[in-house]
Amino acid sequence: MKTIKINLGDRSYPIFIGQKLFKEYALIADYIDNKRVAIVTNTTIEPLYLSEIKELLGHEDILSIVLPDGERYKTHESLNSIYDQLLANKYGRDSLLIALGGGVIGDITGYAAATYMRGIDFIQMPTSLLSQVDSSVGGKTGINHSLGKNMIGAFYQPKCVLINIDVLKTLPDRELSAGLAEVIKYGLIRDKFFFEWLEKEMHALLEKNPESLMHAISVSCENKANVVSEDEFESSKGIRATLNLGHTFGHAIENAMGYGNWLHGEAVACGMVMAAHMSMKEERLKVADFDRIKALILQARLPVNPPDISKEVFLDLMLNDKKNKDGLINLVLLNNIGHAFLTNNYSQQALQDTLNTKDF
Amino acid sequence: MKTIKINLGDRSYPIFIGQKLFKEYALIADYIDNKRVAIVTNTTIEPLYLSEIKELLGHEDILSIVLPDGERYKTHESLNSIYDQLLANKYGRDSLLIALGGGVIGDITGYAAATYMRGIDFIQMPTSLLSQVDSSVGGKTGINHSLGKNMIGAFYQPKCVLINIDVLKTLPDRELSAGLAEVIKYGLIRDKFFFEWLEKEMHALLEKNPESLMHAISVSCENKANVVSEDEFESSKGIRATLNLGHTFGHAIENAMGYGNWLHGEAVACGMVMAAHMSMKEERLKVADFDRIKALILQARLPVNPPDISKEVFLDLMLNDKKNKDGLINLVLLNNIGHAFLTNNYSQQALQDTLNTKDF
Repeated sequence: MKTIKINLGDRSYPIFIGQKLFKEYALIADYIDNKRVAIVTNTTIEPLYLSEIKELLGHEDILSIVLPDGERYKTHESLNSIYDQLLANKYGRDSLLIALGGGVIGDITGYAAATYMRGIDFIQMPTSLLSQVDSSVGGKTGINHSLGKNMIGAFYQPKCVLINIDVLKTLPDRELSAGLAEVIKYGLIRDKFFFEWLEKEMHALLEKNPESLMHAISVSCENKANVVSEDEFESSKGIRATLNLGHTFGHAIENAMGYGNWLHGEAVACGMVMAAHMSMKEERLKVADFDRIKALILQARLPVNPPDISKEVFLDLMLNDKKNKDGLINLVLLNNIGHAFLTNNYSQQALQDTLNTKDF
Repeated sequence: MKTIKINLGDRSYPIFIGQKLFKEYALIADYIDNKRVAIVTNTTIEPLYLSEIKELLGHEDILSIVLPDGERYKTHESLNSIYDQLLANKYGRDSLLIALGGGVIGDITGYAAATYMRGIDFIQMPTSLLSQVDSSVGGKTGINHSLGKNMIGAFYQPKCVLINIDVLKTLPDRELSAGLAEVIKYGLIRDKFFFEWLEKEMHALLEKNPESLMHAISVSCENKANVVSEDEFESSKGIRATLNLGHTFGHAIENAMGYGNWLHGEAVACGMVMAAHMSMKEERLKVADFDRIKALILQARLPVNPPDISKEVFLDLMLNDKKNKDGLINLVLLNNIGHAFLTNNYSQQALQDTLNTKDF
């Protein structure tokens, strides 16, 4: 087992990564003792892991809140059903929520914890690769709004993150690939060495080799931990914003296609190709490096071409992005493999060229 | 003008108290510059002060969001109408909300600021005595839920609080009295000297004497600032919780009668009499002091007797209070005028006696 620490003063917490972690009560005992616990999960994860977690906790009195599965349910209605069940069962401030599921469950449960009675404790137990390497770490919580993804939310840190890599055995291949998009992202934005490792080990990751997964998840979490510790609230310095490589394009794709039709990781993968393409058009990134990026994303069985969305719709959706300021679209671009930066200083022609390209 | 500082590290902020403050742009310039500003107010305040604030800001591009007036609109629907208008007008993270109104507007606007795009800036401009001395200071934000008052919310501090006491000229007498309930509270929980001042000056406050109001608001804010600086997140130490003297009884009254039928301050006034009565039954508070408390609350034209609610309903509603732990009702009681404490260690008989009393 490996432990990675997120350093945020009195909001610091550990990430535990390893196998058989759903048997290790000692890891979470300090957070659970003297708390009323409620588990939030979804209809897909419930039959797979809920009883195991209940056994782990060994409590008699545990509320389970089971939401429908999917990005389209990351809504106020789902959030409110958590509030309703907590209130109906008289859960007080001494409560702790466990988010048992993927990114949607983690985001919505974290936001419920942030806002129920002005804040209660929670623990992340991510069950998808994507949530293990990205959304469960760093305290971004929230829900979607009909006018934009993740528009409503809070920065709110969990007490710990428990990443049991055994759960990936039940993860569908399409979702494994979606998670690999965020793994590749860390290589692109700040870790060229890791990018090169991924080029060699992608086949082992696709075969769910435990040692390879353990390494990929650990390095991803270490990268995220370093970024978040440096810039918790995504300041205008733009350090944390680099984690959004491909996300401005990606969010526009997800939104235009209807949340959940493209998986988040798929949209981000395509968005990273688009950001890399723009970086190439801006003559920041070598053509050969663009080709390597595209090749690795294809190798991870991820899409590199966007769906059929008009340029106008694409631009309008990108204008809604939270990173924007003064009506300009802020984008994360690449100077190189391993070096990303946030900017609104780019040629409009490069953006147009990228949006006009249908086949990268 | 008087300035009181709330000391909370990098979340510290000033409270400005005085007359003619809606003409003093310099006080808020630092917070407003380079921001897109939206004012949230209600239908009662809009015709009275909105144009004055727009003039103060001098911006061209200011969105006004006008909500219906009243506690019954402190709901998710009102909150969502703020989100909708901000998103429709493409407000980004560089936005600032101004809460221009009483406690409901302040709480809901603060919560919108806490959760819109994971947090934007806001300024409090409270227009009722109650919000000036209590809800606008200290960072408690939130909305009501059908199963309980203020159940959904966040701790989120404003950039500054601008208390223009001139606005009290338009405040209805009933609401002035409701605000005085929270003023009296500070005397009861931690400032016996102030309580004695209030006994002498209550008539001048009811006549809206500006010097008296200025003193009452300043001392109230100083007391609140000290409590909040010591215990921002209402820890189990119970320091901040003493600000809830009378509130557990009061919230039950508000909830049972339907939000808004009893004003919050009226319910708190009656709740403080009930808490004082219980303290007397517990032989902590002298009978003569209970009589003084009741007399001051009556002098402020506030109710001392609860409405007709069955004991069972009262207890059930009190069990929903956020201060509770392990299914026990936590209450703030008095050892003396000027000394309150949080406890769940009291005789059930005293609680029963108080709930059985219809005429204090």
